[in-house]
Parts: sequence; structure tokens; C-alpha cells
Amino acid sequence: MKKHNFNPGPAILPETVIQQAAQAVLDYNGSGLSILEISHRGSEFVAIIEEAISLTRELLGLSDDYHVLFTTGGASTQFFMLAMNLLNEGETAAYTDTGTWANKAIKEAKAYGSIKVIASSKDKNYSFIPKDLSALPADARFLHLTSNNTIFGTQIHEWPAVPVPIICDMSSDIFSKPIPVEKFGMIYAGAQKNAGAAGVTMVILRKDMVRSDLTHHMPPMLDYKTYIAENSLYNTPPVFSIYVTMMTLRWIKALGGLEGIQKINQAKAKILYDEIDSNPYFKGTVAVEDRSLMNVCFVCDNETLENEFATDAKNAGCVNLKGHRSVGGFRASIYNAMPIESVQVLVDTMNSFALKKG
Amino acid sequence: MKKHNFNPGPAILPETVIQQAAQAVLDYNGSGLSILEISHRGSEFVAIIEEAISLTRELLGLSDDYHVLFTTGGASTQFFMLAMNLLNEGETAAYTDTGTWANKAIKEAKAYGSIKVIASSKDKNYSFIPKDLSALPADARFLHLTSNNTIFGTQIHEWPAVPVPIICDMSSDIFSKPIPVEKFGMIYAGAQKNAGAAGVTMVILRKDMVRSDLTHHMPPMLDYKTYIAENSLYNTPPVFSIYVTMMTLRWIKALGGLEGIQKINQAKAKILYDEIDSNPYFKGTVAVEDRSLMNVCFVCDNETLENEFATDAKNAGCVNLKGHRSVGGFRASIYNAMPIESVQVLVDTMNSFALKKG
Repeated sequence: MKKHNFNPGPAILPETVIQQAAQAVLDYNGSGLSILEISHRGSEFVAIIEEAISLTRELLGLSDDYHVLFTTGGASTQFFMLAMNLLNEGETAAYTDTGTWANKAIKEAKAYGSIKVIASSKDKNYSFIPKDLSALPADARFLHLTSNNTIFGTQIHEWPAVPVPIICDMSSDIFSKPIPVEKFGMIYAGAQKNAGAAGVTMVILRKDMVRSDLTHHMPPMLDYKTYIAENSLYNTPPVFSIYVTMMTLRWIKALGGLEGIQKINQAKAKILYDEIDSNPYFKGTVAVEDRSLMNVCFVCDNETLENEFATDAKNAGCVNLKGHRSVGGFRASIYNAMPIESVQVLVDTMNSFALKKG
Repeated sequence: MKKHNFNPGPAILPETVIQQAAQAVLDYNGSGLSILEISHRGSEFVAIIEEAISLTRELLGLSDDYHVLFTTGGASTQFFMLAMNLLNEGETAAYTDTGTWANKAIKEAKAYGSIKVIASSKDKNYSFIPKDLSALPADARFLHLTSNNTIFGTQIHEWPAVPVPIICDMSSDIFSKPIPVEKFGMIYAGAQKNAGAAGVTMVILRKDMVRSDLTHHMPPMLDYKTYIAENSLYNTPPVFSIYVTMMTLRWIKALGGLEGIQKINQAKAKILYDEIDSNPYFKGTVAVEDRSLMNVCFVCDNETLENEFATDAKNAGCVNLKGHRSVGGFRASIYNAMPIESVQVLVDTMNSFALKKG
């Protein structure tokens, strides 16, 4: 039986994408070859990567001012790669510290520039999104944000008005809602939560961010200019992962694009947060206005009941609900591909738990 | 109809691995989840990566002196990463220049150490493997070799006796034959030719090669020590690609390990080289003693006949035989997974071509 998969990442994929991917592994598009065996320089794969790029442009509403690149090594690689590509020694960049991944991004960037952390929610265990960004230095080349904090369950719902380009790690909410793309100098995301399978990282880069005046050594595989010049085909890319991303983007488009998926995501989050707020046995862990529509974190009001509820959820087919050790309790990751029916099973289980407990 | 796939890479995979991979995409091992949806920290994937490591150890005969690591970014990333990890500024390393990829490895390493190219076959269009390595500097920390030159069709058949550890790019012949592993300080390989699908790179590193005295900055994602400390799970790895590698290694083991696959590879190469040598319409392009068992390069004796033979081969279901533009003619990549029956189809086509031409 198919499980209700609340994995934080690698995460659930649309069932149709899974079916098509399995068929492509057997025989890609009637070519007589598996998708795993085709050349990255052949016409089949070039068509796949071109479609992935054009769907990304269409869904996000990107103008020709933006490059769409495919890299590997996850957001963890972008943490240093973006700083290495966008900062010379001594130049300033501003970061907000909103959780584990933001923190790693800050730590990695410090090797390349003067990094100012202008806001943090660390003192409240990252349970909210700091809004006061008035400490932004005048000479900051960019402001780095993490749009959705997978571990802590917070999400930026209102993009700040700042006079510098925003660089955003959108690994856990890319393609989940429309964004005002003109605010962004760069967007990056590991694909394995909202945009495909593990193994590929997307980088959306505004052309004017690209530096021709870097003073440090740049290996070609770490230089965005290589990916731009070679259309992400300088060396063998992760062919299958890019294919799965392309198919996932087709699926999003068919649902009505980012407006369409946003409505579905809002409906899914609403039934779950409504249950958390109305059920006396559960409570949310983050500031209500900053609640993530992707990762819903909650605990039992009485912590000693958590094991029992975990068992009930598992028996209902809901898997991978355990909260991160730094928060505890539960985390329901309900990314794009999570059907509302699966969220309803979880809600029903919470409701039954309350009835059982009286 | 399944094609005879002579792709140089990404390349053919064993048919059983393709069948199992397609099933795993639908439902991994009866878990109710796709292999694309499972957590890299869950017990299913930890078992996969552990088995991939232990099969690598078993097949290559690795002692506990070696780490087995999984990275991303291909051999092109290892070109600078190995130099960055194994050399401090001013330290010497020796390289041989045996083709396009060796050349890139040299170029990338120069940013980190003093790189001496001690032998080259460039002046003969890389048509042989240079054997005289007497220019090896006394202070070289390692000798870098490319074991099989995919583009030019040459392969090292006798490992040199040198007083330093060998570092070897085995991207196109890893797991194709037994190797004297004690000679190697490091072996690396993109998986997409002999060891799986695109998206993962294997690094086999002798423990005494790991440096604790590096003087330059090392981002964690570029530091072998991170992969060692975290068992290649510092961040989300390319889950599916590692799974396909593990299944490919299982397949090699079932064929009798590296001795078993070597016999098959020798038989496949023999029937093809025998045809090239006996058929007056074809000739090989490299020194006979250095001929690759993986990439068989040949041309028509009369170049004007090449288009006609290309059409005959295509009509026989043999695809992706075009030689690299720097060599011309044909290149039959007959990696581990290529069945001898497919090689025989190509041989028969060459034979029929000669009969037709009379």
C-alpha cells in the first residue's frame, strides 16, 4: 500500500511523475534506450534540459535577464559557491539567521566576504521570521534569505523591501507559490523537496549579478560563468534528476502553475493548522504569522503522549512525521506533491486521537 | 526494440539493473515509497550506501586503509578537488598527459601546486600510452594517471612501478578488471560509464593521503574529511544514482567479480579488434599494445565510406558509434554492461560491409 509520505526531503513526488519516471528508466520515449543510458549531448536530453529551463522561466515569470542553471552538490554547495562567485574579498553581504541552513550559509560565506548578520531569531529557537532589517549595511551587495526553514517550520510570507538584490535559498518552497521575481538577484534550490529528486540543484541568476572582476581563483566547475556558457553541460550533468525535475514542472504547469499550486498548498496547510489550533492535544511551535505552508511543526500539549500519537499516525499509513531533534514533536512536510487526501488522513488521525483521549 | 547502445557515457547499464531500478522508482523494496522519495537518513538508504561501500571494498580488494566516498560533480570536480585536498602551495605532483581529460586534470591542479607533466602522447594525437616515467620528480607527492582515455581509445595495461602513490582517474574503466590496489593513493570515477548512472562520483582514498596540514581554506563540501566523517551523508546525496551504482556492483559480483567481468571484457574486445585487423575496410587508430578494452576506436581505410557504414550500423540497431571529433571515424564503447551479442552485431555488420564492397 502506498504510504502517506511526510518526509522533509528527499520528499514525496507526484504519482504521475513517478509512473512516467519508471517508464523512462525502462525505455525513454520509445527510443529503445533507458533514460539512464542516453547521452547528455544527444537530442533527447538537450530537449529535456531545454524544456526544464523554459518551464522554469514560464512558471516563475522570468525575463531574459535571468539565467537558469543546473548544478550538483545541493544548497550546501551553493552556500560557498554563491559567495565565491558574487563577492570579492572585503566586500559586504547581509544575511538573516533564521535556522540551521541559514546558519550554514552564513558560515560558508564568511570565507569570501565581510558577512553581516542583520537579523536573527536564534534566541527564540528560530520560531519566527525576523522582520526588522534596518541594520542592512549601505554597502551590502546583496541580502541573503532562507525563504522556508524546513527544520523549524517558518516561512517568509512577505518579501522585504530592500535596496539590494535578494539572494534566496528556496530549497524547501520553490515553485510552491508565485514570487515577485524582480526582487531577486539569485534563487537557488536543491530539487529534492518541491522540484524533483535528489541529485540536482537549480540556480536562477540575474545576469547583472555575474562578476567579471573576481580576484580569486575560480575552478570552472565552481564558476557560474561555466554553467552559463555551456548551458549547464560543461560536463556530464545528473541526467535523470534533471528529467524528473522537468516532469515535475510539467505537472505543476498542468495544475495551473504557481497560482494553482498555491491554492492547493494553502488548502492543505489550512486543514492541518486548523486541526492543530482546535485540538486540545496539539499545539504549533512557531509564530502564527510565520507558519510554513510546507513544513508544519507541532507537538503534543502533553509531551508524554507523543509516542502514542506517533504509533497511531504510523498505523494510519502516515510516515516520516518525526520532528527534527532541535524542535521535537512532529513535522508534517506537505510539499507541492502531497495530496490533500494524505493531509486529511493525518488530520483525521489527530481528531481520533483527541476523541480516544476524551 | 532495444538498441545496441555504444554510447561513450552516460552509457549502457545491465538490463537487470534497469528492470530493478524501474521497479524501485515505483516502489522500493515493498516499502510503499519510491526510491526517489526515501530519506537519505532512513534505514533503507543507509543500507544501500553501506552495501555500495562494502561491494566496492570486496570487488577491488580494499583493505581498511581505504575510504570509499560518494561525491557529485563528476571527475571534472575531482580534477581540482583532489589537488585542493592533497597539495599545499608549492608542493609538487606529477601528471601524464594522455588525452583530453588528463589535460583538464593538469590544468585544474595547477592552481594548487607545482604540477610537472612528466610524459605526454600529445604529439601523436594521444594514440599511445607513454611508458617512460623517468622524469618523475623526487619530491612528487603523487603521480596522476588517466587509466582509460575514452576519447582516444587507449588504456593502461601495465601499471608503472613508481615510488609515489598513484592517483588515477578510472572514470571509464573502473570495475572492468582487477587492479593492484596497493599502488593507488586515490582512485576516482564518475559512475556513468562502468559503475552506474550519471549523478554520482566515487572516490577511493587511502587514509594516509588525507591531509591535516592544509594551509588554504576548505569549504566542507570540497573537503574529503567531511565525506569521511559523515560517511558521504553530510548533505543530501544523489540517492537514486548511488542505488543504481550499488545494483551495478551486485551485478558485477554475480558475474564472478572483477576476474569474471575481465574475461567477458577481453572476449568482447577481441572479436571487435580481430574484425578491425582482418577486415580490409577498417583500421584501428591507436598503438596495438595500448588499445582500450572499453572504447574501441577505428576508421574506414577509405574515409569516404564512413557515412555508408554509419548507415549500415544504424540499420542494424547499433547506435552512438560516432567517433569523437578529435579522432573521427567510429568509437564503440563496450563497457562492462555491453553484451557480447551486441558487439557481435557490430562485427557482423562490418563483415557484411566488406562482403558488400567486395
